[in-house]
Order: sequence, then C-alpha cells, then structure tokens
Amino acid sequence: MTSRRQPVLGILGGGQLARMLALAAAPLGVKTLVVDSAADACAGQVATLITADWTDYGALEAFAREVDVVTFDFENVPAETAHWLAQRVAVFPAPRALAVAQDRLAEKTLFRDCGLTTPDFMAIDTRADLDRALSTIGAPAILKTRRLGYDGKGQFRLRSLADADAAWAALGAQASAHGLILEAFVPFERELSVIAVRSRDGDFRTWPLTQNWHTDGVLSLSLAPAPDVGTLQERATQLARTLAERLEYVGVFALELFVKDGQLLGNEMAPRVHNSGHWTIEGALTSQFENHVRAVLGMPLGDTAARGLSAMFNWIGELPDAAPVLSAVDAHWHDYGKQPRLGRKVGHATVCAGNAKQMVERLGGIAHALGRDQQVDPAVRELG
Amino acid sequence: MTSRRQPVLGILGGGQLARMLALAAAPLGVKTLVVDSAADACAGQVATLITADWTDYGALEAFAREVDVVTFDFENVPAETAHWLAQRVAVFPAPRALAVAQDRLAEKTLFRDCGLTTPDFMAIDTRADLDRALSTIGAPAILKTRRLGYDGKGQFRLRSLADADAAWAALGAQASAHGLILEAFVPFERELSVIAVRSRDGDFRTWPLTQNWHTDGVLSLSLAPAPDVGTLQERATQLARTLAERLEYVGVFALELFVKDGQLLGNEMAPRVHNSGHWTIEGALTSQFENHVRAVLGMPLGDTAARGLSAMFNWIGELPDAAPVLSAVDAHWHDYGKQPRLGRKVGHATVCAGNAKQMVERLGGIAHALGRDQQVDPAVRELG
Repeated sequence: MTSRRQPVLGILGGGQLARMLALAAAPLGVKTLVVDSAADACAGQVATLITADWTDYGALEAFAREVDVVTFDFENVPAETAHWLAQRVAVFPAPRALAVAQDRLAEKTLFRDCGLTTPDFMAIDTRADLDRALSTIGAPAILKTRRLGYDGKGQFRLRSLADADAAWAALGAQASAHGLILEAFVPFERELSVIAVRSRDGDFRTWPLTQNWHTDGVLSLSLAPAPDVGTLQERATQLARTLAERLEYVGVFALELFVKDGQLLGNEMAPRVHNSGHWTIEGALTSQFENHVRAVLGMPLGDTAARGLSAMFNWIGELPDAAPVLSAVDAHWHDYGKQPRLGRKVGHATVCAGNAKQMVERLGGIAHALGRDQQVDPAVRELG
Repeated sequence: MTSRRQPVLGILGGGQLARMLALAAAPLGVKTLVVDSAADACAGQVATLITADWTDYGALEAFAREVDVVTFDFENVPAETAHWLAQRVAVFPAPRALAVAQDRLAEKTLFRDCGLTTPDFMAIDTRADLDRALSTIGAPAILKTRRLGYDGKGQFRLRSLADADAAWAALGAQASAHGLILEAFVPFERELSVIAVRSRDGDFRTWPLTQNWHTDGVLSLSLAPAPDVGTLQERATQLARTLAERLEYVGVFALELFVKDGQLLGNEMAPRVHNSGHWTIEGALTSQFENHVRAVLGMPLGDTAARGLSAMFNWIGELPDAAPVLSAVDAHWHDYGKQPRLGRKVGHATVCAGNAKQMVERLGGIAHALGRDQQVDPAVRELG
C-alpha cells in the first residue's frame, strides 16, 4: 500500500460559502485551505485559514504552492489576483468567466448574445448619459454600479425622471472607478434562479428551478423545486448551458431570472455557489457545494435531482431561536459561526417535505413558532 | 446585537468518528476541539487538534478549559482520564457508562439485568477457570479479553475443548491485566444493531434496526432498515431504552445483537457513534453524528426516521476507485483522509434507494464496477 497525498482545494474568501464548501469537500477526501483577511473568518473553523489580504502576493505564493486548484467564495475578487493565481495553479471558474460576471454590462450583453432577454439597460459614464438613458428606458429604473454590487448594495431606484439628481448624488462618484448601468425596472411576477454546474470535461447539470423572495434586496426565502414552472425549467437549463459553454465555465454558478408575462428575463449571474442553492444540501441527491468541489477538482458530477420539496429560510443579522427548527421533522439548522451584525447573513434553515400540503404545514409551523409568518407567507401562497 | 460565544465540543480521539462528529457539529454552530496523540489524526483536517496523549494532564487541563462538553470517539479511553475530566467539565457518556461498556463481563451482566438474553459466558482469571468454563459452556466458544477489544481484536475462537492450550497461549498473559471472558459461540441467523440516542433530559430515540455482515471480525456491509424484522424493532428499542436509562446514558450508543431462533441475543454495546450507523448521514432525517452532538450539548434531538433504504460499504485497508460511487445515483462517498494501512478503516460509501428492487440494482451495479460482488452478495440475498 503506497501512501497517498490528498487533493487540496484553495478558496479565496472564508465566509459561509467557503465553510460549506469545506464541509462538502471533506467526505470527498479533499482538504481545504482558505485565504481571508479576517482572522475569525468562519470557514477557518472547519478548514485551514491563511489570514492575508488578497493582494498579499507573498501569502498568495505560499497558498498557490499548497493547493491543487483555486476557487472563490465571493465574485468580487480583484481580477489581478485571479489572473496572478491562474499563472501558477488551476483556477476555476477561470478569470475570464469571473470578469464577465463581475461586470453587469458585460454580463447582460452576454445574456443577450446567448438568447436570454434582459430588462432594457444602458451603460452610464456621465450625468448626461443618465439623462439620455432615462429618456430611452423611462422610469421606474434602477441605477447600479457595474462592478462590486451584491445583495442590493450599490443600487439606487428611480421612481421617476425627477430622481435623476438624487441617483447621481448617490452613485455618480463611482462612475469613473466602477462604471454604472441604468436598468429598466421590471414588474416581474416571480423571481427564479437556476443553479448549474459544469465539469472540467464539459459535463453539465442543473438543479430544479428555485423560487426566491427577497426583503430589502437580500434573499429571505427559497422554495425548490419552484412550483408550476412548466417549460421554464427546460428553457432555463438550456440558457444556463449556453452561458456555461460560451464562458467555458467550470464549477457551480447561479443564474437569477425574472418571470414576466410567463417569459424568462435574465437578471444576473453569480459565478459561485449561491444562497438560493443552499436547499440542495438536504434537498437534492448531490448538493451545490459537493458538485462544485467535484467539478473544480475534475471528479465526476453527482446527480442533481431533488428528493422532494425544500424551503430555505435565510437568517439575516442574528440567528433566531434554534429549538423550533431542531425539533421539527426534516428541518435542518445551519449556523455559520459568525458574529451577529445588521444585514449580515448568519445562517439558514432548510425544511424538507414530501408534498406541497406537508410543506405548508411544516413551514407554517416553524414560522409561527419563530414569529416569522411574514417570511413564509408568499411561499405558502405559491404552494397553496 | 450582542456578540456570541459558540459552544465547543471536546473529543478524546481524532479518528473518523471524531471527524464525522465535527462535520455534523459545524452546521449546529458548534466548534470542535480534538485531542489525539497522532499529529496527522484525520479529524484534525476539519477541527482544531491538540496533539497529546490522553495521559498528558497538562494538555488535558488546557483542553478542559476550552470546551463545554467532552465526548469520545473510542471506547477504550483510560478510565482515569475520563474521571479526571469529569471533575472539571461535563463528560458524556459519563465515565460510569463508559466503564460498563469497556468491560465485557459488566456489559453482559447488565444486559441480563435488563432482560436481554446473552450467549452463555463466564469470567476467566486462570487456566483452571478456562477448563471449568469450557466444561460448562462447551465448544465452540470464544475467549476474549474483558477490556480493550474491538473489531475482533483480543479474541480467540475455540473449535473444540482441545483448543484450550492454544487459547491460553494466545490470551492467557492478558488475564491479569485486562481479565478474560469465555463466551459460547452462537450460530446466529442474523447480526443486527440498533443505534440509539438519549438526551441530557431523558428524551430517547432509536434509528431503524441495521443488518450487518462482518469479514474477519470487521464490519463489511450494513443494510438499513434491516428487512423483515417484525416485532424485533420494538423489542430492540425497548431493550436499548432500558439499558440507556439504567446507565443514565447521554449520547449515541450502539447495541449489537444476534438473532437466533427469531430471538434477540445481546452481543455488545459500543458507547459511541458506531460504524453500523454511518448510513444515517444520508439515510435518516437526522444522522447519528448530529444527534450525538445535540444530545451531549443539551439540544433537542432530531427525528431518526429513515428516508428509504440505505446500504453502507466499508472500505478497509485502502480506498477502491471512487468513480463508480461518485457516478452512481444517490451514492455517497466518505474518504476519512487517512493513510492506507492493512485492516484500517479508511472510508465508506452509502447507497440509498427507494425500494428493495432499486437497492439490489444500485448495490449490484456499484459492487460489480468495483469487482466487489462478494461484499454485497449477502445483502442482495436478504433483499431478494
């Protein structure tokens, strides 16, 4: 028997996504090494943590020597860092795919090239651009930074043309550094996401569509498989596949979609495991975390079928009482080991059920015990 | 929002059981600190590891200060260590329960006190005791050390009375240090185990009975829920409950049982999470690892129902090719991150299915791809 060396997964960023990746990597025999600037980064509780900035090339050099592959738990890793690492070690998703997903303009342009309709949009570099765009797109509209936005950050909603000054006051200063984009506001009927994975040798899978509800721009509740999607599943899978192949993408990504008049519109792409895919840990035969690890390390992908219905509560700011979840049937608690902080994602819970009626009962029971009926109301209506 | 301190689980022993406990503890927001004498103990890949002997009281002192509760991944922790720790921090299972399970004589005596029949047994301290016991119990029989035995270690099987000299030559030297016991060899029909958990406030649950097959004294394959057990499930649950309450046991334990003439016989008790319960990670609503963490930390227990059928392959010595498992539907790979070594448990795989026919197909397909038809044959016969 010859001795063995375990593969090592390197992750830039040590938050909850890295933590859940490390937890999925371990049973595959994969060690995880994480780089984060925070010494208390929560992934460090279950993986080895290098405390360093992503621009500390001395630390990155040591990191690159230790790992077999590098991936990310955050899409806004500096492009130079990703490129620098890619010259030394396999990096998935590749810096080019990351760059597209980091830029709302490049992303939406790609969506259209792939046949995915998007809300109207225009690039904004100056105050005059904003006026021109508003006269074309109209209001309501949303002014966003092209880069570095997530969870509703870096956005300003314009209710009417009269809001142009206020929007520019809020975001104009970022026009030169990050660029801006004006997008038409779409009064969508539903928000869906498709989580997809592509392997190093081109195998491609999607999980069933997830329906999502946001509060203040942050995901509040997910339900999967999204009920009554009809042919949208096939359409979303085909679009995600086209995108993935165009980008030669390797790993898991999320494609966020709106449904308007029964058609899909592309909102944005997240080049990583995604909050709306957390239900896959218990709710699918293989989780998004496990398949991301498999994909970037060149292992065969696992089956992405759902076991039944799943609903995920997001815990924002601080954790509620765990007891009602721990005591419920087929409900699963996920505490990320983070300190509470306003607006911070600190955990989630997934509730699984065999059918819609059972899900309504279980979801309602837990929400009621937590005094959070509001959080589940839209999902209960969708199921009911 | 006030800052929080996460609970810390301390584990004596850093093998695969500690590793899987740590992986289950993380989503509960529990940090894990492990003590093991080996610097490469595999639990250290997913938890903080203190490299120290269990008799290094300086290291144990520091360990006890850091943790909220202490548990074990190995039953043969020195009793003095367990007692010493119990004076400083909560220890579950308690040293008294551990002591009973460490001693085959005390264990079998307790089984009988609880109404669980056992094979005939007699304590052996001298060569003359062995002769007396053999004349009472007859052959075949098994001479075992009372303490420190596991996975068939410390055992000698006597086919006839003429084997007494050979048995004494093999184990007689251990009579004074560990004590010996002679047990009648039972030509059992099936080997079953029940995994049970009891919480700090006395809540008690069992998972469905598991059927087990051993090769050279080491678990080779488990199937759960064990088919066609009829009233044995209820009987096993009642016996496990009686045992747990008698010992005021807290945490998960396994009760290994033989079925002879349709009746249960007590073989042994393992005061910890158990190899025959590994299927619960994917095959039950709550795994044995998660419920052990919940129990010892005083959290509510989770539901122990099975999701469907599960079968677990044990990987002994070295891992087979992972690809046939990774590529199969609802099959789950568990690499413990250990170096290969003859007889060592280095991993397992669990295959889940919705019914017996599907299980036979899946199990057979994987075994065939691995050239391990023999490993699954008895389970396939049981299902067929």
